[in-house]
Amino acid sequence: MSGAAIPVTIQGAAGYGGQELLRLLQAHPRFRVVAASSRRHAGKPVEQILPQLTGFYPDLNFTTPEQALEVECAAVFLATPHGVSRTLWHTVVSRLPEARVVDLSGDFRLRDRAAFDRWYGGEHPHFEAVSEFRYGLTETNREAVRSARYVANPGCFATGALLALAPLAERGLLKHGATVVATTGSSGSGAEAKATTHHPERAQDHRAYKVLRHQHQPEIDQELQRLGAQARVALVPQSGAFSRGIFTVAHVELEEQTDVAALLRTRYADEPFVRVREQSPALRYVVRTNFCDVSAVQEGRDVIVLTALDNLVKGMSGQAIQNLNLMFGLEETAGLHHPGASV
Amino acid sequence: MSGAAIPVTIQGAAGYGGQELLRLLQAHPRFRVVAASSRRHAGKPVEQILPQLTGFYPDLNFTTPEQALEVECAAVFLATPHGVSRTLWHTVVSRLPEARVVDLSGDFRLRDRAAFDRWYGGEHPHFEAVSEFRYGLTETNREAVRSARYVANPGCFATGALLALAPLAERGLLKHGATVVATTGSSGSGAEAKATTHHPERAQDHRAYKVLRHQHQPEIDQELQRLGAQARVALVPQSGAFSRGIFTVAHVELEEQTDVAALLRTRYADEPFVRVREQSPALRYVVRTNFCDVSAVQEGRDVIVLTALDNLVKGMSGQAIQNLNLMFGLEETAGLHHPGASV
Amino acid sequence: MSGAAIPVTIQGAAGYGGQELLRLLQAHPRFRVVAASSRRHAGKPVEQILPQLTGFYPDLNFTTPEQALEVECAAVFLATPHGVSRTLWHTVVSRLPEARVVDLSGDFRLRDRAAFDRWYGGEHPHFEAVSEFRYGLTETNREAVRSARYVANPGCFATGALLALAPLAERGLLKHGATVVATTGSSGSGAEAKATTHHPERAQDHRAYKVLRHQHQPEIDQELQRLGAQARVALVPQSGAFSRGIFTVAHVELEEQTDVAALLRTRYADEPFVRVREQSPALRYVVRTNFCDVSAVQEGRDVIVLTALDNLVKGMSGQAIQNLNLMFGLEETAGLHHPGASV
Amino acid sequence: MSGAAIPVTIQGAAGYGGQELLRLLQAHPRFRVVAASSRRHAGKPVEQILPQLTGFYPDLNFTTPEQALEVECAAVFLATPHGVSRTLWHTVVSRLPEARVVDLSGDFRLRDRAAFDRWYGGEHPHFEAVSEFRYGLTETNREAVRSARYVANPGCFATGALLALAPLAERGLLKHGATVVATTGSSGSGAEAKATTHHPERAQDHRAYKVLRHQHQPEIDQELQRLGAQARVALVPQSGAFSRGIFTVAHVELEEQTDVAALLRTRYADEPFVRVREQSPALRYVVRTNFCDVSAVQEGRDVIVLTALDNLVKGMSGQAIQNLNLMFGLEETAGLHHPGASV
Repeated sequence: MSGAAIPVTIQGAAGYGGQELLRLLQAHPRFRVVAASSRRHAGKPVEQILPQLTGFYPDLNFTTPEQALEVECAAVFLATPHGVSRTLWHTVVSRLPEARVVDLSGDFRLRDRAAFDRWYGGEHPHFEAVSEFRYGLTETNREAVRSARYVANPGCFATGALLALAPLAERGLLKHGATVVATTGSSGSGAEAKATTHHPERAQDHRAYKVLRHQHQPEIDQELQRLGAQARVALVPQSGAFSRGIFTVAHVELEEQTDVAALLRTRYADEPFVRVREQSPALRYVVRTNFCDVSAVQEGRDVIVLTALDNLVKGMSGQAIQNLNLMFGLEETAGLHHPGASV
Repeated sequence: MSGAAIPVTIQGAAGYGGQELLRLLQAHPRFRVVAASSRRHAGKPVEQILPQLTGFYPDLNFTTPEQALEVECAAVFLATPHGVSRTLWHTVVSRLPEARVVDLSGDFRLRDRAAFDRWYGGEHPHFEAVSEFRYGLTETNREAVRSARYVANPGCFATGALLALAPLAERGLLKHGATVVATTGSSGSGAEAKATTHHPERAQDHRAYKVLRHQHQPEIDQELQRLGAQARVALVPQSGAFSRGIFTVAHVELEEQTDVAALLRTRYADEPFVRVREQSPALRYVVRTNFCDVSAVQEGRDVIVLTALDNLVKGMSGQAIQNLNLMFGLEETAGLHHPGASV
Repeated sequence: MSGAAIPVTIQGAAGYGGQELLRLLQAHPRFRVVAASSRRHAGKPVEQILPQLTGFYPDLNFTTPEQALEVECAAVFLATPHGVSRTLWHTVVSRLPEARVVDLSGDFRLRDRAAFDRWYGGEHPHFEAVSEFRYGLTETNREAVRSARYVANPGCFATGALLALAPLAERGLLKHGATVVATTGSSGSGAEAKATTHHPERAQDHRAYKVLRHQHQPEIDQELQRLGAQARVALVPQSGAFSRGIFTVAHVELEEQTDVAALLRTRYADEPFVRVREQSPALRYVVRTNFCDVSAVQEGRDVIVLTALDNLVKGMSGQAIQNLNLMFGLEETAGLHHPGASV
Repeated sequence: MSGAAIPVTIQGAAGYGGQELLRLLQAHPRFRVVAASSRRHAGKPVEQILPQLTGFYPDLNFTTPEQALEVECAAVFLATPHGVSRTLWHTVVSRLPEARVVDLSGDFRLRDRAAFDRWYGGEHPHFEAVSEFRYGLTETNREAVRSARYVANPGCFATGALLALAPLAERGLLKHGATVVATTGSSGSGAEAKATTHHPERAQDHRAYKVLRHQHQPEIDQELQRLGAQARVALVPQSGAFSRGIFTVAHVELEEQTDVAALLRTRYADEPFVRVREQSPALRYVVRTNFCDVSAVQEGRDVIVLTALDNLVKGMSGQAIQNLNLMFGLEETAGLHHPGASV
């Protein structure tokens, strides 16, 4: 995969999504980071703010978002929170009309305005642009992504739930809804310290939050319905005692006998980043990688599908690079095919 | 609650259940531990094997199970694993026919022989004795416990699931089953080191295990059906990255409109160890206590009931003491009413 | 220890020091909390802000510090940060001239003004009052505490270092200084979320901080010199990956042969809260208790003394209660003699 | 660095050292794993036993150690425990006389027989071969490693201590010994579950072990003395609550004024894997990488040097590859120059 470097910009590069983009892109065969913005750290060397990168970006300083727009590039990652991306996107495409954009926020995922207003809310100055975005779950939407100019990268919970349920939806097996209980690591809360990620209180805790009211729920429903589902999911997000990863349990009752493990194996046989397991997946095999491991257990009509992925890689920045690889006609796995460390 | 000391024996006192009994009983107003058995540590001082208890049991040595039977006592805790309790019980009641017995294992919980054979298996030399045991979930079975000679103490997952679902079952609201996803801490695996509790591999992991095949599932079904449920649960146990606690998510679809949060408040208003919360419970408020915190969220027909408890206290040894308090006509909360530390 | 309730007030009751005071005092045989201040949570029920205490303080609301001063009491805990205590103390003794005061901050520990200015700094409107305070390391200063009106409760690092080194200092064995490397849990940073306690970044980290520049160093030196030491310690504080506890390693080179393990056993034989171990102490045996475990290893002239304690109990609130017990002529262990849970 | 693949064998490939070799070597530009032994898992696919590697070694099965010897290769990693390596080495060089060998155990590190007997003990059938081994701390012994046939890879504690103290030893500044307090993660205990790595008991614990009696102490002394030190270290190893990494605190008293931070910067200016920091290093910036971060703090005559590294990478398998790169005339950083993830 030799070829000229493709210059890319990261907006919001000091957050966890941005940090993971910087980590992964430093070894990418083609993409090269030419600008990295952080309003808070503008003017400071990336290696000073992010010591884990010392030696890898010796010449890169954080800029303001505006300064980053002045740097020519072929693609922009919006690793900015929802609320920010919706405004920034328009500025980006005005200034860099040729650039491909991958937005990691939820601002351009929901196609229904009422749903957007209910689950995200606030002003959305460019909601009509949603129709120009493709939903970037590579495994269910590969061809659309390949030709997309703008990609709305899936939410982390949505990635885990959809990789569990998409094969069922595609086969018409999702008629009565599904229960989805998903547990996320503390890095899902972002790089800023918060009460919910205060170490003494999180280190040995476990709780649920935004039960039936998490903004990834309509995104899951929207994509499942596009794939053939006739029902909605009930999503229960949980805060786990670990730092990285999302583990998802999906419970479905089948009307007809179907070998779901076999269905998963067939469905994902050619997917480079989905590994079907015979045992339960486990976070420790996937964290810091772009893999999603999946398995199924059945008993009578009850089917449990389990998925495990890294919320910041397959659930965020790795998936964003996977999408951009496709958008530039590169090998889908470029810069992403690394094993995890298991401990 | 002054009165003469009531001598009690702990069989299996070096396991985590036994350790918690020793910890809790050292401050109990009436029960006094007169014998503590551990085949492995027989002959050694309790304080040497369990340094956290240094200063609290200066004169107590571990004995063999057989030696412990020679010590007169009014009650015996069988903190022995299933398979052991079923044999030991008979020896205990032969030797100490007046003693009350609380068995912490699963050997005397299931009333159906076929179910027992399927979920536990192995020889059961005294299965007929199951009818002499009362199921020790105090909150659903208080009067039976009060007059019981033998109590089968509930499993940890069963405690969390039943405290979530019993109020619905009692009101006839469990017609179509329930999804139960419950996450346990590593102490649930016991005091012996195992591959699944090897720190480097457990510290940041999360996975499911025994999906739809955990031996607490039939125990949950049996008790829910006794209370009025017409359906079974689908139980997905998970291994969490924390040490103590079980957090349970129960999903039920209601046929009729019911305010489940109000139902919980009414049902548990007088329960000394169940606290109904408005927010999600959290392990950090209940670990190392005998409390089970509970809350409910509803959206349309979907109801999510959440419970949090300590697997070794309310899910095991604390509940066992709660039962024995009742069996001896003591205050139910004796020796158990302590707040947690939150961090 | 029956007798009339002794009313006590906690200033700064929502921090971790205050929370532990509330937790421990709810079961104290004599002290009863009559006021608990928190500027941030004033007006709200204690049980709402601190859910772990639900059921234990049904009638107690947080007040402002000023409102708390209006409540008659016999003693005040200043669980306020340094900088606040120095001002608040004067208001307390003006309003409640009979009250005993235990200050958990560093404001009244250092007797040397220059040292105070260097290590703490800022205005100190009542530095002359330092002479009215007794240093509250019960084990080295019991009689002074007993008759004290005001006690400066030791810092958490100081407690661990002093319990390791005081026996050597008293015997004149500290001639050439000591290296002290001490590792604290994240709760030492307090109840407010901070960058250094952001869970994803702390959960698997370890680092040093304030190396040779921690404000507990002069406090250690001051007390050791009072006890006979002729040299200073070099203190290296570390941030550990755990929540609670301080583990201290003290390295001393002896001039003469001395059996330090024997010295520790003799020195601490009658101390109710110091347990001399043959093996290394471990945090898991002392956390959430008022015990400090200690042991020594020698090889030639090198002596290593190890201590383990809970930073919020023996290193803070438990020790404060221990001191107040003495100040009121109660049994020193009242309300504090509980074993830990080990897991 | 293109060129023909260089076949390498890993003996003891299922332990943590072996797992890290497999992880790192799958992306190495020249080395290719042709055999991987594990007596326990012989005959099973590597990807089945080590699920984190699924997709990376589709054709590799574990073999017995003997079978692995039948596979032609240019180099052998002995990732076997001490006691095993000393025997296996001789078999390897008999069967594969041309092969380079890197031994990750302690069997060939100590040059003094009496020291070996004291610290390791047991039979050593080939102690005379120690003279054929070069000590593989690349940073202090690069040229010797380059021309070595056999390399004794340093111990993990030794790596951290030596990278802290070597610059001082080389400058004659180590005249009176040093205190070394080093904290290791649980993965340092290896892949087999043990009581000391039982998750419920390790997750929030901290303790010391083998105080002044750890077998890495003589290895540190031996290398420091070769570099010019006139004194010994006092080593206090600690078990931390984290999984990966070693954090080392070294305390030295200087006789003359020396700017140690400047010394470190100069000494390590050209080292590809040592990064001198202004602040304390932190494990989270180095884990899962081959970097060792270092910094120094001084106050009067006291100098504290701090190092942080990953015990399984720079402290073990990464360093072994670094050595083998040199032994084959490859770029020293080949396959090793990756940044960490910080969370």
